[in-house]
Amino acid sequence: MNKIPTYRPTLSDIRSAHKRIEMYVTRTPLHRYRTLENFIDAELYIKHENHQPLGAFKMRGGINHLIKMSLDQKKKGVVTASSGNHGQSIAYAAKLHDIKAVIIVPENANPGKVASMEALGADVRFYGKDFDESRSEVERLSKEEGYTYIHSANTPDLIEGVGTYTLEILEDLPNVDTIIVPVGAGSGICGTAIVAKSINPKIEIIGVQSDAAPAAYLSWKSGDLQSVPNNTIAEGLGTGLGFAYTVGIMRDLIDDFILVTDNELESAISLLLEHTHNLAEHAGAASLAGALKIKDRLLNKRVVLIMSGGNLSMKHLIKIINNT
Amino acid sequence: MNKIPTYRPTLSDIRSAHKRIEMYVTRTPLHRYRTLENFIDAELYIKHENHQPLGAFKMRGGINHLIKMSLDQKKKGVVTASSGNHGQSIAYAAKLHDIKAVIIVPENANPGKVASMEALGADVRFYGKDFDESRSEVERLSKEEGYTYIHSANTPDLIEGVGTYTLEILEDLPNVDTIIVPVGAGSGICGTAIVAKSINPKIEIIGVQSDAAPAAYLSWKSGDLQSVPNNTIAEGLGTGLGFAYTVGIMRDLIDDFILVTDNELESAISLLLEHTHNLAEHAGAASLAGALKIKDRLLNKRVVLIMSGGNLSMKHLIKIINNT
Repeated sequence: MNKIPTYRPTLSDIRSAHKRIEMYVTRTPLHRYRTLENFIDAELYIKHENHQPLGAFKMRGGINHLIKMSLDQKKKGVVTASSGNHGQSIAYAAKLHDIKAVIIVPENANPGKVASMEALGADVRFYGKDFDESRSEVERLSKEEGYTYIHSANTPDLIEGVGTYTLEILEDLPNVDTIIVPVGAGSGICGTAIVAKSINPKIEIIGVQSDAAPAAYLSWKSGDLQSVPNNTIAEGLGTGLGFAYTVGIMRDLIDDFILVTDNELESAISLLLEHTHNLAEHAGAASLAGALKIKDRLLNKRVVLIMSGGNLSMKHLIKIINNT
Repeated sequence: MNKIPTYRPTLSDIRSAHKRIEMYVTRTPLHRYRTLENFIDAELYIKHENHQPLGAFKMRGGINHLIKMSLDQKKKGVVTASSGNHGQSIAYAAKLHDIKAVIIVPENANPGKVASMEALGADVRFYGKDFDESRSEVERLSKEEGYTYIHSANTPDLIEGVGTYTLEILEDLPNVDTIIVPVGAGSGICGTAIVAKSINPKIEIIGVQSDAAPAAYLSWKSGDLQSVPNNTIAEGLGTGLGFAYTVGIMRDLIDDFILVTDNELESAISLLLEHTHNLAEHAGAASLAGALKIKDRLLNKRVVLIMSGGNLSMKHLIKIINNT
């Protein structure tokens, strides 16, 4: 089993991570969009993590983690289970540093995503009916063959890495009032909260998840890890269970957590296309969907929305465009 | 009349411009897209000028020009005719530096673009049936009221400013072989060519225009300024005439110039959405459309495609998505 870490990254750790990874990642822009402010009466800024190579924030964590591994770990390689942004990020980081990456995916995994990870040089293997079954193979490979298991939530180095985008936000907009963050396994918002609260505890941190997969939300609210069905269309927000490590950090540091519907995510994707000319995936649009839901609370504030990723499929884009 | 300048910016001028504007513009990423390489057998990189504030490269030029104006010129303000990326860029730069900007647009101008320029604080005035008529009012205001006329082609400071993206390309990829650039009035490709040819004359510079508005192409080819109907859907590529200043630079410095159809531009927008998850406007996709047309010549080369802008309207997006 993957163990729950006993320490949390500090602001200082995240600053070191920024130096470690900055030559490999894009310093993404924070742009203000005035026409979006017709919908929410606040100063609205978007942190464009969709502009990273591979179109998502995750690689900040993957690269940080792989650089920090010991030479022995690097020689043996890494393993994880994900066909989404986490898996791509690990494949990318492994290619950069010439480390073998095995990615376990369910037998019905999306062929486009498998091809993309293979193009990055990963050894993609099919195992099991779903990711819960895939994970058992990850644990076996990790135990029996010595690969380092990179868990998407229980890995402090990932939080250190992804926390770096918030250093950039606070450089660009030191007087931000509120940061709204999409939540899946929770590494993104944990990094955001550690950085922002260390620098200025008054900065409000709000998480957003889909009500069709509210495991992290329910775990945060109750303090007990919840397992509920994952029925959201938003791949980047979908987990069936809360993770002790990230839920613990969230309970200590974030101010609020809200749910939106999958339809609200689709409307937000459409608004973002029209007003920012950026393609967001469902998770990447969750911060705007959340902001629209609580717009009365944002009145006249300086608000940053994290556009965590832009990897929307053409199939979903066509559906969304034709419904608006 | 707006005069044709007698000098051309040098590499050194463009390096100074980069220092002048870098705090106001985004250092845009140059990303490689491996799945696009299934269509063109080359190393393919995209320079993401669509990631600038306002979604286009033009602001590099507008900001550079307005900073360099004399205090007297700044007090009197600027005037131009454009509802597209040039007009928005001037409105944005003027707002940054607290300079009055008058933008003259035809009576039938797109209300969304007018609203966007007004949101940036510009004084937008309607005059004439088309931009040729609007320009007469620009010239009158310039002559009678002392506004500085910012011509989108005949202004060396704009070329200096937009040339800065090529400095960034050569920092990121010093051994580039070929840079493919969308051409409208020509300021973008002139800046690209001056920088690239000064640093390494072997770097090949290729322009792309739509065959439905080939004025710059025909002027470049013949050496005489041509005036032909502008029927392209690609606003950023469309001029009805060639401009002496930019055509002169292009004839001296660029290696080739190719035409694509508007349909090929639409197909390229669709490919870019699917494989890069970026929204390109027609002009922004012209570099990929051009590369597809000459892919045999790009074999095994390191090729940079300039994605000059991303401001595609929802109306056009819906049409393109449903045709693919």
